[in-house]
Amino acid sequence: MQSLTLINGSATRTLASTDRGFSYGQGVFTTIRASQGRMLLWDSHLKRLLEGCERLGFPISNLGKLLLKEIGILPKTDLVIKIVLTAGIGPRGYTTPAEIYPTRVIQIDPLPKRLLEPEPANLRLCTTRLSIQPALAGIKHLNRLEQVLGRSEWTDPDIQEGVMLDTEGSVVEGTYTNIFWVKGSQLFTPDLSGSGVAGVMRAQVIQIARSLNIPVEIGKFPLSSVIEADEVFLTNALVGILPVNSLAEVQLHQNELTSVLASRLNEVLGV
Amino acid sequence: MQSLTLINGSATRTLASTDRGFSYGQGVFTTIRASQGRMLLWDSHLKRLLEGCERLGFPISNLGKLLLKEIGILPKTDLVIKIVLTAGIGPRGYTTPAEIYPTRVIQIDPLPKRLLEPEPANLRLCTTRLSIQPALAGIKHLNRLEQVLGRSEWTDPDIQEGVMLDTEGSVVEGTYTNIFWVKGSQLFTPDLSGSGVAGVMRAQVIQIARSLNIPVEIGKFPLSSVIEADEVFLTNALVGILPVNSLAEVQLHQNELTSVLASRLNEVLGV
Repeated sequence: MQSLTLINGSATRTLASTDRGFSYGQGVFTTIRASQGRMLLWDSHLKRLLEGCERLGFPISNLGKLLLKEIGILPKTDLVIKIVLTAGIGPRGYTTPAEIYPTRVIQIDPLPKRLLEPEPANLRLCTTRLSIQPALAGIKHLNRLEQVLGRSEWTDPDIQEGVMLDTEGSVVEGTYTNIFWVKGSQLFTPDLSGSGVAGVMRAQVIQIARSLNIPVEIGKFPLSSVIEADEVFLTNALVGILPVNSLAEVQLHQNELTSVLASRLNEVLGV
Repeated sequence: MQSLTLINGSATRTLASTDRGFSYGQGVFTTIRASQGRMLLWDSHLKRLLEGCERLGFPISNLGKLLLKEIGILPKTDLVIKIVLTAGIGPRGYTTPAEIYPTRVIQIDPLPKRLLEPEPANLRLCTTRLSIQPALAGIKHLNRLEQVLGRSEWTDPDIQEGVMLDTEGSVVEGTYTNIFWVKGSQLFTPDLSGSGVAGVMRAQVIQIARSLNIPVEIGKFPLSSVIEADEVFLTNALVGILPVNSLAEVQLHQNELTSVLASRLNEVLGV
């Protein structure tokens, strides 16, 4: 299928310059993989969108049905569906309008081939740090300059992702992925109550690990914890589990628990 | 005059939903007061816009002449001119496109009457804290959710502004203003190397104070420094110097040095 953009249900690609998503980033987004005509982890994506709107001061009701109606029947190909929700049009100034008419952007594109069968990733360490802001942590809001700056640090095509630390030096995530690592028989992933995006695939992987009786420790960890790990992998909604080949030029060799989790994930997702 | 919006020189009010200003907030803005057909502090506004674009990874050249040409001859009324510059249209993903065609939005509106002769302001303390992010501090970028959240904390029309602290508890600024205070014969204002927007009016007031041999101390200060001050005032590009009447229900009575600075500012601005 060709790319398609719907804004508030209409096939258009333009929106008002006074949209609060553009003016101040007052909005959230999510990026969903669709396969065989079905959106993967739809309920989790919807839940995070709704939670994000609420935390940004514009609760929305009846969103799920509306979005499903607008997205309609999907072709059986592999797709990326990006959904953006903003606080809508408003006058100049930070005051959120009393009456909000949210803007909905749905952008559907073919899944890029490199995401279909990705190679194990090589990671660098970003020098850009993530600030600590509990009021915004976890949700996928539109204020993404830190990720843009982190991603702008390299152009080497052999590096697929950068690991970002917070301003206190704890590991948070990749620029567009969450990060997990294995030490012994235990799985580790950063706590995201101060910084970072709580990915829907991250939540799914934590759930799967626990269902397999693999202990998952969520906390604050220094970079050395990751570098000394037995296995490292990334997650996001488009690639699922992405094994890591190297981090800051340190090679990682094992892939045992990562493979177990990836197999189980494919079963759960039905792909 | 009626309101006018120009996007890349054309009289339109819509832009692409794939603009990186909308997708990630990769852009900067400034809000300029025009009076008697003249933009106040134009050189400072332009300088900050250019610095912001550079820090966000899309340096722009020859911007000043282009903007002046597009803005054209202004009527003699009091106006607000908002200029937004973004990294332009780009594909999904945080990677900044190799070739950037910045988007320019110029929005011209009449100056709201309440800004022409504002009353001394009553301030509250916001519970939303500003995160510490040296990579973004100082510039007026489009990631403004913290200010939106801060401003959403009150609806009382007798409160005009909220003071925001950073996550370590130091005073930073108001939601849409910079803050100064007087103790003895000295002027104080927060250091903005970790959080906050370095307003063009803030820089102008610091310069004026120094030209009048008033010592200005720029640093990290707790809220108590402001509450115990003799005088407090706010600055921004639209209102100039705005005296403060009360902060967190503590009355402030003196207005001596504030008046001296405000008079000198009016002379410098020629208004």
